[in-house]
Amino acid sequence: MKKTLEFLEKHHDRYEQELIDILKVPSISSNPDNSEDMRDMAEMLKQEMRSIGMDNTQIIETGGHPVVYSEWLNAPGKPTLLIYGHYDVQPVDPIELWNSPPFEPVIKNGKIFARGSADDKGQIYIHLKAIEAVLATTGELPVNVKLVFEGEEEVGSIHLEGFIKEYQEMLAADYVVISDTPMFREGYPGITYGLRGLAYLQVNLRGTSTDLHSGSFGGLVKNPINALVEILAQMKDNDGRILIPGFYEDVLPITENEHDKLSKLPFSAEDFARSINAPELFGEAGYDDLERLWARPTFDINGIWGGFQGEGAKTVIPAEAHAKVSMRLVADQDPDDIAKKFTAYIESLAPNSMEVDVDAMHGGFGYVTDLDNPGLQAGVRALSRAFGKEVDFLREGGSIPIVKVFADIIKAPVLLLGYGLPDQNAHAPDENFSLYNFHKGIESIVYFLEEIGGLK
Amino acid sequence: MKKTLEFLEKHHDRYEQELIDILKVPSISSNPDNSEDMRDMAEMLKQEMRSIGMDNTQIIETGGHPVVYSEWLNAPGKPTLLIYGHYDVQPVDPIELWNSPPFEPVIKNGKIFARGSADDKGQIYIHLKAIEAVLATTGELPVNVKLVFEGEEEVGSIHLEGFIKEYQEMLAADYVVISDTPMFREGYPGITYGLRGLAYLQVNLRGTSTDLHSGSFGGLVKNPINALVEILAQMKDNDGRILIPGFYEDVLPITENEHDKLSKLPFSAEDFARSINAPELFGEAGYDDLERLWARPTFDINGIWGGFQGEGAKTVIPAEAHAKVSMRLVADQDPDDIAKKFTAYIESLAPNSMEVDVDAMHGGFGYVTDLDNPGLQAGVRALSRAFGKEVDFLREGGSIPIVKVFADIIKAPVLLLGYGLPDQNAHAPDENFSLYNFHKGIESIVYFLEEIGGLK
Repeated sequence: MKKTLEFLEKHHDRYEQELIDILKVPSISSNPDNSEDMRDMAEMLKQEMRSIGMDNTQIIETGGHPVVYSEWLNAPGKPTLLIYGHYDVQPVDPIELWNSPPFEPVIKNGKIFARGSADDKGQIYIHLKAIEAVLATTGELPVNVKLVFEGEEEVGSIHLEGFIKEYQEMLAADYVVISDTPMFREGYPGITYGLRGLAYLQVNLRGTSTDLHSGSFGGLVKNPINALVEILAQMKDNDGRILIPGFYEDVLPITENEHDKLSKLPFSAEDFARSINAPELFGEAGYDDLERLWARPTFDINGIWGGFQGEGAKTVIPAEAHAKVSMRLVADQDPDDIAKKFTAYIESLAPNSMEVDVDAMHGGFGYVTDLDNPGLQAGVRALSRAFGKEVDFLREGGSIPIVKVFADIIKAPVLLLGYGLPDQNAHAPDENFSLYNFHKGIESIVYFLEEIGGLK
Repeated sequence: MKKTLEFLEKHHDRYEQELIDILKVPSISSNPDNSEDMRDMAEMLKQEMRSIGMDNTQIIETGGHPVVYSEWLNAPGKPTLLIYGHYDVQPVDPIELWNSPPFEPVIKNGKIFARGSADDKGQIYIHLKAIEAVLATTGELPVNVKLVFEGEEEVGSIHLEGFIKEYQEMLAADYVVISDTPMFREGYPGITYGLRGLAYLQVNLRGTSTDLHSGSFGGLVKNPINALVEILAQMKDNDGRILIPGFYEDVLPITENEHDKLSKLPFSAEDFARSINAPELFGEAGYDDLERLWARPTFDINGIWGGFQGEGAKTVIPAEAHAKVSMRLVADQDPDDIAKKFTAYIESLAPNSMEVDVDAMHGGFGYVTDLDNPGLQAGVRALSRAFGKEVDFLREGGSIPIVKVFADIIKAPVLLLGYGLPDQNAHAPDENFSLYNFHKGIESIVYFLEEIGGLK
C-alpha cells in the first residue's frame, strides 16, 4: 500500500496531464458531426485499459456508440466489481457563456474546466488511474474487476440495457460501482445510497362534445376545468400528505440510522429558497427538508391546460381539460401499482357529468442500497480513509434509470461513489472538476479495491 | 284598429316582398368590401322611413357605419318609445354549408332563408311595417316614436355608446324597445326581461424564478399548479354554491312570481344534455334548471395553463401557473365589487410560498326589467293579443351590452320583444326567419303602440 501511495505521489502530474488529454476530445454523443471523435475516444480508452494492464480489452459494438470493455479476473475467490462509467459528454451550447473553450482544458483555483471533466471522464479516470497504480506497484488487484464505459449516457443509454442483457454472463459481478454523482459539499466524500422512482400520467376530462358559450350554458353544465381542479385538489392534504388510497403501502420508512445520518448534513432552507427565489419552502409535515427531497414520495402537477389561454377574455366553457401529473416514488413502491391506485382514485373522484380517462405514460422504481451492505460499508471506509472525513450519506431526489437496470439484470447492489461537486455545472457552461477530488478519488479507489478484496 | 288589421291583411304579400328586397343587400359590417352595400342599406332604410311617414329622417355619421334615425313626435302627453335595431349582418362563411345563397332569399316551409333575416332585418321591418299600417290607416300614432338603426352591432357596436351620449337629448324616451332576441318556442311569444352580467379576471401564481426539475426539487417546494388547483377548488362547494365571501350580497332573489312563470316553460334536461353530449347536467342546488341558466350567477374557469403541455412526459415543476376565470352576474351585482371580493378571497387562500396577482379584465352589470313595469305589461298584452297565446317570460344567460348602455344613458327600462326562433341559425349557415312571426310580429307592434299609448 505504501508503494502504491508513493506511486500516486510520483505520477501526480502525469495523471493530470492524461486527464487533460482525454478532455480535449469532443465526444458529444448527440452530435453526428462528432462520431469520429466518439470513435477516437473509445480507442483511447481501450489503449489506456490495455496499457495499465487490463485483460480482454475490447470495443463492443452496440448499434450506436460502442461500449469499451476490459477485465481483470485473476483474483479467484475474491469479489468481482463491475465499474460502469461513460465517455460521452453533453453538448456545449450556449458556447458563448463559457469562460474558456469547452475542449481546451484550463486549470484554475484547483479545478479543471472542460466539458466532461466531472461528467464523467474525470470520474472514470479515477478508476483507471487507481487500477494502474495498484497493478504497477503490486502486480495484481485484490479483487476481480470488469470495466464497462458506454458512449450513450447523455442520449438516454439507448443501447445499454440490450448490451447488459446480451453480455449478462460476461458482466456477472458482486457489486456494481458507478462514479457519476456529486458529493454534498466540498471536502466531504459522499455515497449516494438511494434514488427516487417515478410514475407519470396524463388525466383527460371531457364534459361536452364542443366548447360552449358560458352565457348560454353557464350554470347548468359542469365545466371540465372546474372539475379537474376539484379532483386534483384532493391529491394532497394540507400537511402535504398524498391522499391516494394505499399510496404509502410499500414505502420503506426512513430508519432511525438514516434519519441520524441525513440530519447531520448541513442544509439551509433559507439558502435553498433564495437560490430559486421561492418566497417560502413547502413540504410534507413530520419530515426534515432533505428527507422530503430525497426519501419521501411526491405528487406534482407538471402541466395543465384547457380552454382559452390567449390574450384578453373569451367566455368559453371548454369541452375538455387535461393535466400531466407525476409522483416521485421511493423504494419499494411499484410504479405500475401506483398508476393503478392513482387511476382508481381519479375515477372515484370524477363527477358523473364528466368522462375521464387516465393514461399511464411511464414509470420507474426507486432504489435504495442497504446502509449495512458490506460493499457499501467498504466504500465508506475507503472514502473516509482517503479524504480524512466522515462520509456523507446521500440520496438523490431524481432517478438514474441505469442504476435500476444494472441492479435488476446483474442482480448486485449498486454503489454510487461520486466525486463531483454541487457547483460542477455538469450540463452547463464552465463544467469543472476538482483536482483535489480527482487525486483523493484515486486514493479512495485504491483503498476501496483493498477493502472489497478483504470481504468474503 | 279594424282598418289597420285589414291593411295588414291587404298588404301581406307586399310586406314579404319588401322584406325580400332588403335581405338581398349584403350589409356585412365586418367586411370592408361591403362598405358600399352598407351605405345602400342605410339609404334604403332612410327612404323607407320617409315613405311610411316618419319625420326628421336622417343618416347620422358615427365614424364607422352610420346610424339611420327618424322620429314621429306628434303625440304630446303620450309616452315616447325609442326603438333600436341594426341593419348590419354577420359574415356568411362557411358559405358552402348554405342550402341557398345567403343574399338570395328563399321561402321554404313558412320560413325565409337569408343572412340577416332573423338578425336583425326581419325584426326591424316588423316595426317599420307596423308604423306604416297605423299611420296609413289612422293618420297618426298613439305614441311618440324614435327609430335608431345602427350598422355596427355585429362588430361590437363600436360607436353606439358615443352616439347615444352625443345625441342623448334627441334620444330621450320613456321606454327602449329592442327586437333582436329569440322566442323560447315556436308559436309562443316571448319577452326577455333579464340578462346576466359578467366579471372576467386572470389569476397568476408564481412559485420560483425558473422552472425546476421535479426530481431535484420535488417535495420541498410548492408547485404553483398544485397551489392553483387547490385555490380554485375552493370557489364552489359541492352544491355548486360560490364560496367567495359576500358574493351573493347584492343578488336579487328570484320572486315567487318569476319562479312560477319560469317553471311553466317546457324544458327537458335530457334533451338539453343530449344536444351538447354531456353525460349529465350540473347546477346549483335548490334552483330549477332555467333559473340556474338565466337567473343565478356562475363561476367558470374559462382557461388554465402552466408547465408542460406537449407530447410525452417532462418532469418539471413550473415557475408559474395561470387561469382565466369569469363569473356571470345577475342584477344587482356590481362587477367591480365582485372583482374586489374575488381578488381578496384568492389572496386569502394563496399559500405564503406563492406570489399571487389577479387582473380584473372586464365586467358588466346584469339587467332585469321589473315584471310589473307598465311598459313590459303593455308588451305582454300586445304579444298575447297577436299570437293568441300566453307570453313566455324569458331571461338570457349571456349579456347584451347595449341594453345596459341604453338603460344607463337614456334612463328608461328596456323591453326586449323578440320574434326570432331558437333554430334561426342567427350566426350560422341557413339563417332563417318565420314568416308567421313576421306577420304576427307586425300585428303585435300595432297593438303595442296602442297599449303604450294608453299608459299615462
